[in-house]
Amino acid sequence: MAINGGIPLVLACCIWLLPNGCDSSSRILVVPLDGSHWVNMEIILKELHSRGHNLTVMLSAKSWYIPVKSPFYTSIVMKSLEDDIDLTFYDDMLKRNLKYRKMGSFLSFIFQQWDLTSMFAMGHGILSKAAAEIFDDQVFMAQLRDAKYDLVLTDPGLPIGVLFAHYLNLPMVFNVRWINIGDSHFTFAPSPVSYIPLTLTGLSDRMNFQQRIVNMIYYIISVLQQHLVLDPPYRELLERHFPPGSSMLSMQHAADIWLLRADFVFEFPRPTMPNVVYVGGFQCKPSKPLSAELEEFVQGSGEHGLIVMSLGTLISSLPQEITEAIAAAFAELPQRVVWRYIGVRPSTLGNNTLLVEWFPQNDLLGHPKTKAFVAHGGTNGMYEAVYHGIPVLGLPLLFDQYDNVLRLQVRGAARVVEVATLTKDEFLDALRDILENPSYRNNMQRLSRLHRDRSMSPMDSAIFWIEYVIRHKGAPHLRTEAYKLPWYSYHSLDVAALLLVLIGTSLWVSFTVCRILCCKFSSKKKQKQN
Amino acid sequence: MAINGGIPLVLACCIWLLPNGCDSSSRILVVPLDGSHWVNMEIILKELHSRGHNLTVMLSAKSWYIPVKSPFYTSIVMKSLEDDIDLTFYDDMLKRNLKYRKMGSFLSFIFQQWDLTSMFAMGHGILSKAAAEIFDDQVFMAQLRDAKYDLVLTDPGLPIGVLFAHYLNLPMVFNVRWINIGDSHFTFAPSPVSYIPLTLTGLSDRMNFQQRIVNMIYYIISVLQQHLVLDPPYRELLERHFPPGSSMLSMQHAADIWLLRADFVFEFPRPTMPNVVYVGGFQCKPSKPLSAELEEFVQGSGEHGLIVMSLGTLISSLPQEITEAIAAAFAELPQRVVWRYIGVRPSTLGNNTLLVEWFPQNDLLGHPKTKAFVAHGGTNGMYEAVYHGIPVLGLPLLFDQYDNVLRLQVRGAARVVEVATLTKDEFLDALRDILENPSYRNNMQRLSRLHRDRSMSPMDSAIFWIEYVIRHKGAPHLRTEAYKLPWYSYHSLDVAALLLVLIGTSLWVSFTVCRILCCKFSSKKKQKQN
Repeated sequence: MAINGGIPLVLACCIWLLPNGCDSSSRILVVPLDGSHWVNMEIILKELHSRGHNLTVMLSAKSWYIPVKSPFYTSIVMKSLEDDIDLTFYDDMLKRNLKYRKMGSFLSFIFQQWDLTSMFAMGHGILSKAAAEIFDDQVFMAQLRDAKYDLVLTDPGLPIGVLFAHYLNLPMVFNVRWINIGDSHFTFAPSPVSYIPLTLTGLSDRMNFQQRIVNMIYYIISVLQQHLVLDPPYRELLERHFPPGSSMLSMQHAADIWLLRADFVFEFPRPTMPNVVYVGGFQCKPSKPLSAELEEFVQGSGEHGLIVMSLGTLISSLPQEITEAIAAAFAELPQRVVWRYIGVRPSTLGNNTLLVEWFPQNDLLGHPKTKAFVAHGGTNGMYEAVYHGIPVLGLPLLFDQYDNVLRLQVRGAARVVEVATLTKDEFLDALRDILENPSYRNNMQRLSRLHRDRSMSPMDSAIFWIEYVIRHKGAPHLRTEAYKLPWYSYHSLDVAALLLVLIGTSLWVSFTVCRILCCKFSSKKKQKQN
Repeated sequence: MAINGGIPLVLACCIWLLPNGCDSSSRILVVPLDGSHWVNMEIILKELHSRGHNLTVMLSAKSWYIPVKSPFYTSIVMKSLEDDIDLTFYDDMLKRNLKYRKMGSFLSFIFQQWDLTSMFAMGHGILSKAAAEIFDDQVFMAQLRDAKYDLVLTDPGLPIGVLFAHYLNLPMVFNVRWINIGDSHFTFAPSPVSYIPLTLTGLSDRMNFQQRIVNMIYYIISVLQQHLVLDPPYRELLERHFPPGSSMLSMQHAADIWLLRADFVFEFPRPTMPNVVYVGGFQCKPSKPLSAELEEFVQGSGEHGLIVMSLGTLISSLPQEITEAIAAAFAELPQRVVWRYIGVRPSTLGNNTLLVEWFPQNDLLGHPKTKAFVAHGGTNGMYEAVYHGIPVLGLPLLFDQYDNVLRLQVRGAARVVEVATLTKDEFLDALRDILENPSYRNNMQRLSRLHRDRSMSPMDSAIFWIEYVIRHKGAPHLRTEAYKLPWYSYHSLDVAALLLVLIGTSLWVSFTVCRILCCKFSSKKKQKQN
């Protein structure tokens, strides 16, 4: 489909139903990011739907996770959002990632950064073209405007939602875990690099000098990525449809509320602006009884208890030799294991291990027999583990999973093993440590108590703030407008430069005057002596 | 009383009752700051008492506001906390301040800074001596330790509470509006000087270049004040009783929770750490009916409505000529006025103005007839005005009152007049503007709607977090330990220096190698040509 500026494009909107319902409820335009981000968004949407809000979700017919038909929302299926990327993309990425990690830290760092940058460049290339097509379709944009939404709820990882909110002049709420790249990590508040580790660094908030250097290098790289990779694809679109000087970053800054999927029993403490609401773990809930069959298997574990293993839904399977090593290790344990697994049955699998294609993870983690959770480190699973107080053996595979499991490891509630070079013995040692050393469980239980001790549930907070923004048509009093300052003014470099020049000049003048006076005085003295 | 290190001093504790009560309730040691700060603290104490907590308040028998006998708490009356300063101190300060403000902004700035610095130096001189006496009294300190408190609740404006919490190794909660001086303003989170105006600057969060220079100068002065005025008096005490390297600032940093009396409908948005809880306006409550006499006076205002005037309790009276001007202005208005006033009856007073020594401010502000609030700009009154949606005519006198009324003025909900040079016409013009221009009332009503729209009342938040800290014996996961880094590491200056040296060296090496190669190449060329 060619982009033909000026002439409205007939964008194929397969389903385009204006939200209806009672006037007292609001109309929310939802622009979600696919994959695990959708899992979180869907939970909020169900809650908003149950409170009578009318939801319209923008999606592609080729979405991995987002269903076109839903009892909770009306869909706008956008042909222009379709692409040829499927979930095997992440399997390929994992293969490359495991290869890099065998090379040692420095080379691994270079290659992983390159891989991520390429991924972001590709993703934003596709997205910016899709966005340009959508914005050039004046008929579609007029329909969108006429729908008179009250709010855009989006994930800033997908910039199209941000663009819509600005174009339609609507309040905007983010549902966000972390922003992909660049200075955006620093969007919501100043973030000293000395104690705020960048995403993907695998660093904690207590860094030695060497680690602080690494963090600074990551910061510089991420700022370069922002300016060289994230912004450029959207520039033409911004010039055509937005006021001069608009940038993706400044548009992100203008969000009314950031529902940040963070709780500081898990995240490292960091400054945030008053428009950041902590909703980490909002998906957590008490466990329900298991099916009779699963309950029977779990009860069969006796006093030894159960191990639950899942590597999430993004990656279909690990390399065969690693799967075999894990299965062999499980076989040597007295515990029973439920393993969410898709693929060839490992030859080393013991009788104590049950392979299932899907399981009710929350109900298993909340089961009193459960002793440990072997997991890749996705945030949803990590918060469920915290909620139920189950210690974690982390097998991080991609993206922020390294950072996530590290957060639990530094709190003594998890151990992390390197998947790329994993052996049976190494896995077994780590798992036995988790099972036999009570400190992991005690620490996780402590985190659980802290996490559950809230004046208001994270879900209620999320809904309160979404409705607050709708009620008041925004929340500009909670965000600063300082991001509109030039960077040198924001960092007070202009003021510092002027003060330094003034101080320097005064010192120089004083010094010169003193020298002249001294010279005169000494020459007079000499004259007198002569 | 002489300080005699090593030998326990017989510190006169007139009343010293160990807190008793049911074991399920907690024992809270309260070290409050006197004056308007106490007004806020007392409200929290009443609430804590009603929830069954045992409170012990440390105070001086010469306290201005803090009663020795109270149904809510047990007192520890400290002879060493007594001093000869009474409330006339503030009347003198006001006189000097009004004189300075007539001089023009620069001179006024210099003199006011000097006055404040002297006040802080004197205050901390007295306090540090008192603290040294208390800490040297080993018998008293042992009793304090044996009382086994669960928490220290204090105002960091009075460093003794902070010292106790550290010495007794107890969790610590601050009830705080702003910290007196220095870097402490920056304690809870990084605070870019480009958009966070320092207390007492009278600047907003949107500063031009000149204002940013002023803000930076204030910042430098406040850091100097911190290191030259606040810290030195306590150094000897810290060396004698605390681990090496302890400082007042680092002790403040270690607070578990900051109950910050801020709401961002009033305060400018700023970053905070996760252990800062916004409780601004926690004292606000619905109004109660007035006394029959007062109600009759108010109803007599008819359609014109009522003006409420109060300059707080710290200052007893304004200079006579200003009082006369204000009274004359009131007399020309069709409204009725209730004026909280102590002093000589102004000769210009009109029939429409009722002078009273005390009035139920909250009930008057919540009365439907009330049209305007003429006030000095103390935070308590400002939050009550916001709560009830009453526009303000600000007559700031001292301290942060200028900042407070400015916050409402930039939001279009108040006007500020300069008391030092106030004339009748100026006051009348400003008041008529507030009464006749509906924008002030509309803006204040909007702030009021935003302020009241909370998921949890500020008081409930305050109590929840105090009890949270007690339940979990602290909340270290909500605060950063980055304050333990040296300042150059905190600001990443060491990392930046190393990276600059490395980049510089690589450039120099590259340049030198290129030059050598070029020289060789050109000499070879010459040889060939020859």
